[in-house]
Amino acid sequence: MKKTIGILGGMGPLATCDLFHKVVEVTEAGTDQEHIRVCVDSNTEIPDRTAAILSGGADPVPEMVRSALRLECMGADVLIMPCNTAHYFYDQVTRFVRTPFLHMIEETAKEADRLGIRKAGLLATDGTCRSGVYGKAFRKYGMELISPSEEGQKHVMDVIYKGIKAGDLTISLDGFNGAMDELEGKGAEVLILGCTELPVAFEQFQISRPNLDPTRILAAAAVRFVGGKVKEPGSR
Amino acid sequence: MKKTIGILGGMGPLATCDLFHKVVEVTEAGTDQEHIRVCVDSNTEIPDRTAAILSGGADPVPEMVRSALRLECMGADVLIMPCNTAHYFYDQVTRFVRTPFLHMIEETAKEADRLGIRKAGLLATDGTCRSGVYGKAFRKYGMELISPSEEGQKHVMDVIYKGIKAGDLTISLDGFNGAMDELEGKGAEVLILGCTELPVAFEQFQISRPNLDPTRILAAAAVRFVGGKVKEPGSR
Repeated sequence: MKKTIGILGGMGPLATCDLFHKVVEVTEAGTDQEHIRVCVDSNTEIPDRTAAILSGGADPVPEMVRSALRLECMGADVLIMPCNTAHYFYDQVTRFVRTPFLHMIEETAKEADRLGIRKAGLLATDGTCRSGVYGKAFRKYGMELISPSEEGQKHVMDVIYKGIKAGDLTISLDGFNGAMDELEGKGAEVLILGCTELPVAFEQFQISRPNLDPTRILAAAAVRFVGGKVKEPGSR
Repeated sequence: MKKTIGILGGMGPLATCDLFHKVVEVTEAGTDQEHIRVCVDSNTEIPDRTAAILSGGADPVPEMVRSALRLECMGADVLIMPCNTAHYFYDQVTRFVRTPFLHMIEETAKEADRLGIRKAGLLATDGTCRSGVYGKAFRKYGMELISPSEEGQKHVMDVIYKGIKAGDLTISLDGFNGAMDELEGKGAEVLILGCTELPVAFEQFQISRPNLDPTRILAAAAVRFVGGKVKEPGSR
C-alpha cells in the first residue's frame, strides 16, 4: 500500500478540511494517482480543548486516542492534527500511539529556525498564548517569541472571533494592524499565524506581512515524511 | 458512537476535499461537537476512471471496494463519493458493501424532481456524457435531460480542462455561454454541474444561471441520512 497521511481531525471540521486541502495543494503531482493517500477521521466527539484547559471541561484525550488508533488501522504512516490548542495534549495522546505523530508547533519552530528567524511574533487565541506551547518550542531552537500587548491581543481575538469566525469581513482592521505593527516594531521578523482562522484572515483581508502558516508547514512536513515532493517550501 | 459519513475519495483529491467541505458547510451546527463525524479515505491508488471506461485502462473497482470496506471498519453509517465518472462503477462496488451507499447522480435527479424540474441541461465531460449515467437517472423520474451540441460540448470541455483544471481564469467564456444559452433556449430549466470543476467555474466566473451542484446535493443528502440538520435545501 501507498504511504499514507492520517489526519486526526474534527478540531474543528473546517480546520480539518483546510489541513487536508493544504496537503493536496503543497504536493507536486500531475495526476490523481501521483497524490498521496490521505485518511481523515473528523471526529467531532472530541470535547472542546480550550474548555478542558481553562475551565475543567471534559477531557479530550480518550477520543483523540481512539481516532489516532483508528487511523493506524487505516494504514496511516504518519499522523498530523490541525488545532493549535489540541497540541497541549500531544504527549498524553502519543504515549498510546506507535505511528510517528508530527507536532505542528515543533514543525513551525523548526521551519522558522531553518529560515534563519531569531525573533517571531505570535498571533493566536488567548488559550494558545496562555498554554505556552509556541514559546516552549521556539525557545528550544534558541529563538525568541513575542506576543502582543494586552490591548493588541484583544484586537487579535476580535479579528478571529468577531471577524472570521462570525463571517464579518467589514470589521475594522485598525487595532489588528496596530498589534502587528507593535510586534514588528519590537523586532519580530515574521508573524506566526498560530490560529487556524488567521491564514483565512490574511487571505480575505489581503494582508501581505511576512508570516508563517503552521497548517501549511505541517502539511508540507507530512508530505515530505511519506516521501512525497513538496511544491513550495513555506508560506512566508 | 456518533453517526458517521464515510467519503470514498481520491477521485480526485481536490474533489474529495470539496465534498468534505460541503458536508461541513451544509450542516446546521453551532459548535465543533454539533457537526457530524466524517471519515475520508482519499485513496489515490484508485486507477483513472475515464481511462478504464474509454480505453481499457486498469479496473478501479478493487481499490474502490477496499476503501469502502475500510470506511465500514471506521464506523461509517453511510458512504458517498465525489467523481461523476466513478458512479459508472457504482453497482460493481456496492455488491461488496453492506453500508448504505448514496448515489450522487440519483440524488441529483431526485432533487431536480422534488424541485419540479421537467427538463434539465447537462454540463459535463465527454466521458460522463457518453457513460449515460445522468440520462438514465433523469429518465427514471420522467425528466428530460439534454446535452449541448457537438460544438457547444467542445466549449464545455475547454472551460473544464483549459480553464479550471489548468488554472487559466482569463479563458474566453463566449463559447461556454453560447452552449448554456443553447440549452436554456431548448427549454432546460436548470443546468446540472455534472463535473466537479464546474461549481468552481460558476463561482470563479460569477455565473448566476439556475443550476444544481450534485456535490452539494450529495453532501446534504448524506447529512440528512445520518440525522443531521441541513442549512439550505439545494444550490439552485
